[in-house]
Amino acid sequence: MSHNTFGHLFRVTTWGESHGPAIGCVVDGTPPGIPLSEADIQPWLDLRRPGQSRFTTQRKESDTVKILSGVFEGKTTGTPIQLQIENTDQRGRDYDDIKDKYRPGHADYTYDVKYGFRDYRGGGRQSARETATRVAAGAIARKILGDDVVIRGALIQVGPHEVDRNNWDWDEVSNNPLWCPDAHAAKQWEEFLDQVRKDGSSTGAIIEIVASGVTAGLGAPIYGKLDGDLAAAMMSINAVKGVEIGAGFQAATLSGEENSDEMRMENGNVTFISNNAGGILGGISTGQDVIVRFAVKPTSSILTPRKTVTKAGENDEIVTKGRHDPCVGIRAVPIGEAMMACVLADHVMRHRGQMG
Amino acid sequence: MSHNTFGHLFRVTTWGESHGPAIGCVVDGTPPGIPLSEADIQPWLDLRRPGQSRFTTQRKESDTVKILSGVFEGKTTGTPIQLQIENTDQRGRDYDDIKDKYRPGHADYTYDVKYGFRDYRGGGRQSARETATRVAAGAIARKILGDDVVIRGALIQVGPHEVDRNNWDWDEVSNNPLWCPDAHAAKQWEEFLDQVRKDGSSTGAIIEIVASGVTAGLGAPIYGKLDGDLAAAMMSINAVKGVEIGAGFQAATLSGEENSDEMRMENGNVTFISNNAGGILGGISTGQDVIVRFAVKPTSSILTPRKTVTKAGENDEIVTKGRHDPCVGIRAVPIGEAMMACVLADHVMRHRGQMG
Amino acid sequence: MSHNTFGHLFRVTTWGESHGPAIGCVVDGTPPGIPLSEADIQPWLDLRRPGQSRFTTQRKESDTVKILSGVFEGKTTGTPIQLQIENTDQRGRDYDDIKDKYRPGHADYTYDVKYGFRDYRGGGRQSARETATRVAAGAIARKILGDDVVIRGALIQVGPHEVDRNNWDWDEVSNNPLWCPDAHAAKQWEEFLDQVRKDGSSTGAIIEIVASGVTAGLGAPIYGKLDGDLAAAMMSINAVKGVEIGAGFQAATLSGEENSDEMRMENGNVTFISNNAGGILGGISTGQDVIVRFAVKPTSSILTPRKTVTKAGENDEIVTKGRHDPCVGIRAVPIGEAMMACVLADHVMRHRGQMG
Amino acid sequence: MSHNTFGHLFRVTTWGESHGPAIGCVVDGTPPGIPLSEADIQPWLDLRRPGQSRFTTQRKESDTVKILSGVFEGKTTGTPIQLQIENTDQRGRDYDDIKDKYRPGHADYTYDVKYGFRDYRGGGRQSARETATRVAAGAIARKILGDDVVIRGALIQVGPHEVDRNNWDWDEVSNNPLWCPDAHAAKQWEEFLDQVRKDGSSTGAIIEIVASGVTAGLGAPIYGKLDGDLAAAMMSINAVKGVEIGAGFQAATLSGEENSDEMRMENGNVTFISNNAGGILGGISTGQDVIVRFAVKPTSSILTPRKTVTKAGENDEIVTKGRHDPCVGIRAVPIGEAMMACVLADHVMRHRGQMG
Repeated sequence: MSHNTFGHLFRVTTWGESHGPAIGCVVDGTPPGIPLSEADIQPWLDLRRPGQSRFTTQRKESDTVKILSGVFEGKTTGTPIQLQIENTDQRGRDYDDIKDKYRPGHADYTYDVKYGFRDYRGGGRQSARETATRVAAGAIARKILGDDVVIRGALIQVGPHEVDRNNWDWDEVSNNPLWCPDAHAAKQWEEFLDQVRKDGSSTGAIIEIVASGVTAGLGAPIYGKLDGDLAAAMMSINAVKGVEIGAGFQAATLSGEENSDEMRMENGNVTFISNNAGGILGGISTGQDVIVRFAVKPTSSILTPRKTVTKAGENDEIVTKGRHDPCVGIRAVPIGEAMMACVLADHVMRHRGQMG
Repeated sequence: MSHNTFGHLFRVTTWGESHGPAIGCVVDGTPPGIPLSEADIQPWLDLRRPGQSRFTTQRKESDTVKILSGVFEGKTTGTPIQLQIENTDQRGRDYDDIKDKYRPGHADYTYDVKYGFRDYRGGGRQSARETATRVAAGAIARKILGDDVVIRGALIQVGPHEVDRNNWDWDEVSNNPLWCPDAHAAKQWEEFLDQVRKDGSSTGAIIEIVASGVTAGLGAPIYGKLDGDLAAAMMSINAVKGVEIGAGFQAATLSGEENSDEMRMENGNVTFISNNAGGILGGISTGQDVIVRFAVKPTSSILTPRKTVTKAGENDEIVTKGRHDPCVGIRAVPIGEAMMACVLADHVMRHRGQMG
Repeated sequence: MSHNTFGHLFRVTTWGESHGPAIGCVVDGTPPGIPLSEADIQPWLDLRRPGQSRFTTQRKESDTVKILSGVFEGKTTGTPIQLQIENTDQRGRDYDDIKDKYRPGHADYTYDVKYGFRDYRGGGRQSARETATRVAAGAIARKILGDDVVIRGALIQVGPHEVDRNNWDWDEVSNNPLWCPDAHAAKQWEEFLDQVRKDGSSTGAIIEIVASGVTAGLGAPIYGKLDGDLAAAMMSINAVKGVEIGAGFQAATLSGEENSDEMRMENGNVTFISNNAGGILGGISTGQDVIVRFAVKPTSSILTPRKTVTKAGENDEIVTKGRHDPCVGIRAVPIGEAMMACVLADHVMRHRGQMG
Repeated sequence: MSHNTFGHLFRVTTWGESHGPAIGCVVDGTPPGIPLSEADIQPWLDLRRPGQSRFTTQRKESDTVKILSGVFEGKTTGTPIQLQIENTDQRGRDYDDIKDKYRPGHADYTYDVKYGFRDYRGGGRQSARETATRVAAGAIARKILGDDVVIRGALIQVGPHEVDRNNWDWDEVSNNPLWCPDAHAAKQWEEFLDQVRKDGSSTGAIIEIVASGVTAGLGAPIYGKLDGDLAAAMMSINAVKGVEIGAGFQAATLSGEENSDEMRMENGNVTFISNNAGGILGGISTGQDVIVRFAVKPTSSILTPRKTVTKAGENDEIVTKGRHDPCVGIRAVPIGEAMMACVLADHVMRHRGQMG
């Protein structure tokens, strides 16, 4: 069972709500002897942190991580690592509006239906704040994978505006506040997002995560397939509505000739002429780049009044005020990278468990 | 761990290869007292069975299921149900061509890299034949869900050709051999597929599965979300490269106003004006139709020679002869329905386990 | 996988070392709406706390628990509950002696062999301090079970000295510092333990845990049997070397006539004339008292020098100084009760998950 | 969740009832490339088979195992192995007596309470017949462990009669029909059991399983401890009421000086002067023999009438006629060995998964 746990040999259990005293996670199964300190984790959290540009929520959280267990004399001991982040910006707000009214597109209604009531402060457990703990766990996963595996992510579409893949430059991603690999598109997006923000509206986005240097053979068919686990991992991120691998939905339109990635020997190594498979065949990595894409819906927290119902069962309207992201997809990039890292670390260990 | 098992309280473990003596699965956790016989399962298998039209492989398998345990005096006992299907069409073929050469787009190479060797007869464990056991398990899941939950699937795109949603008619699905809900599109597809078949080529497709009557409240955040489990379930089906819920990838292009599903009271019940969420918010069902879509790539078994490499590490070419589906997506519809049923049955039990 | 997690629907993940900043656990799967505050948990921790009599270690830990998540407006929300206990008595000791030498009977050597090194401060992760988090989790489990289920434990043997079951009085257990249900034996034990302590030695013990009011039907054959789960739960407690149910090892000496518990109807209810089964048949509860017994070895921390080896592979001797329990079994009673509560709570939820 | 599954990386799911068409199990996670055929498994099943002496039930089952998947060209492929055994001796008996009456000491009542009804033919799923599938799985586990690990079991007590450990001779175990390592005790037991049989009675027993050659470092604290998993594994065997490791319950009576196993270097290797720990410290193997003991109750199927109740809630009496073992402990030896093998194989893989 896995209500709040993911992974098998590399296993992460998260806890905490948006406006409780803290959030955190237990990372279990880490190999011993890996050098680890807060300094290895904090930079990744800083990348996800809100309030770094005008395009993300102005909530101010330092997101300072503390390691409370599992590390001794600077190295992992092989026992559970507790990572903890205090919630510092729990400003005394007025929640009366969302307490008894359901925000359309949010999980307010479903939490109430399932559990009978909910912690409505800042979204409680349904808040995307939980994803900070994934990013922290992902930092450990990266250390397990080592430097040969490089995991990078980018925003490739904002609203209707896609990047031009001819302009793709990984170095560009950190040059703009939008994780955009296409300098030209980045500018276009900034204008688009300024308008969205001005309108009190929001927009969806598509994120692409690429893992290079992944050894061939990872993934455990049939129900521990690498792509199956990646799909679950990405779909579990707040606001995600679709996941695809390699050619993804586009594969539906292709012919067998176009889609199959032909193979050649090169310097004694197996290579592929294309990568429609996204680095995975039969649920097992091929040694090519593992490519995952996921779509994030626009946040439903907008300034236009929306029709809704109250907990008491009356028709009403709601406007979601407060600090929000016009495009939650922006901050989803480091989260997607972290989930990729966690899934791969788990499969590295699962593979060597079975294979020796 | 779940190499070959899916689900938690409703739990299915599958086994078997395409050309071994049999395939099967163990279905564990079924509530006791449910009337069950082979006659409840066989019709669903018949829907998936190959060779029923010129658009699917001509392999002849009767796919006759036997219940070997867990049923007594016509009712489930609550103990494991073993479902078994003999492989009857293991014709003595010549596998020399695929034994030592990797079919591009197939899992031949990755199985060899992972396990060191593979059962190459008919694809062995990587064969889509395994999905017959899921369909059998799905029949039991449907009985757990009861008649109030209706699960239906349709092919909505074949190659570049989509259905026209204005023509959608569920009754049409069983009127044509392509699971097409649009009578007009069905005819178009038949012509298209005849050409594909004539060319010795293949094409991809998109399938939509809809579950109606699903009670609100199913799904266990954060890592047992209903959409997370559906994504893993669908992605684990052979040849699937993408999964989406509700508006899916389209949600990326929408504004917050367009995307959020407004709510109204109607006859004392909560209703939604639209269903971009696909019936799931925060990983929990809303009570609306649960809508999943997945993309299937074209099979890589085509008559055009493809560049490949041999097990011995030499460049070569391969042509996949034999009996194949021009569009494997056609037979994926009942499999997608079965996976939907299994995921929902598991979540019904998980929900009442926690909630009482 | 479950390195540091136990339970399925009621699921506890523990973390922390004896001398790190804190220890804690994540309790996942708790039904929503249960009133819960630190005041519900602290009394159970106080019962386990060291330093309450001259018979337990003089380490001073307040063991103050904090709830960091999963509770809102005084009630459980159904999301993960993080329980945390700061380590306050990490006095700056000299660990040079145990750093490089293995204490016989402790896990020093095996942790080093497995992980390559270990957190030697106070035993690190192998310390019985971890069991405080189980006691905290057990307090929540008791709330799930409700008042109809009463879980009580007692020490029934200290060294060679057994209680006389004719003197058994549950009320006596809290009247002496040794959890002894036999006032006469309690006095005898005090004398015995004073001598053990004076000698710088230690002694083993046997604990009995009884759960009354357990509904018939709990337990999931074959590998989720109630007794199987209880055996694993109790054996996982530090220093435990044996677990038995009902008549236990004594059953080996009985005849079929003596052992089988005959049945009678009484006021319309099924009753049993005896309870050699310890309330469990075929892995399922019978409705009688569930009775588990476990044996705890004497701690290996004694003042007599013992032959040992060093990390560097040299023969040596070791004396374990410092604050220790002459009989660790005394403090094992509330831990055994907590594990009983956790296993039962899990099975209550598993049962209703399958049965509805 | 694990109703009918045990193990994690080496994972066994069993199914089937005593009088259904067959029983079997799926063994998942086996490393690829291990030579395996029915001939590797059948000898272990033959050791457990009933009817081999006058001291076991006269039911005649050939217990012929078939491998239906997971093996290709004589070697494991790394995919699930389905092992199947047909039930051949389902003689048309009259079950009227046990259909509606509960046999005291059997699980008849608890199955009815839990599931509402039960397959009463030969005990259905509660029958010890299920253990044949564990023995089959254990044969595969032994192949994973390799020849360096030797697992042996013996009966060490029958009723009140213990072996004399001074007479212990492993070679003697196969020289008598009672798995007795003490030739003298074997004779005594034969006489005792003849009388038990003549009386239509039954007796309990204690079994000891020893694994030699187990590498130090296996076991995953805290909730995947080697002894915790062994306790669950042995307790899950039918009729087992107690499990102990090393000195076991005897440890309660020992002093710290007596109990702790002192250490010495010998030829550069760590050795222990005694083995009260039973080869496990802190849940991790020490490299010494792993020693587990378990107690089996006398079967409740006896010829003396016993008081019972009927399904309809009336007082009644029952005599269990038919073919039964006077001492079910005899046939438990190969089952205990198999469970030891399965637990160790799982931990070998778990260990290398985490440690590399």
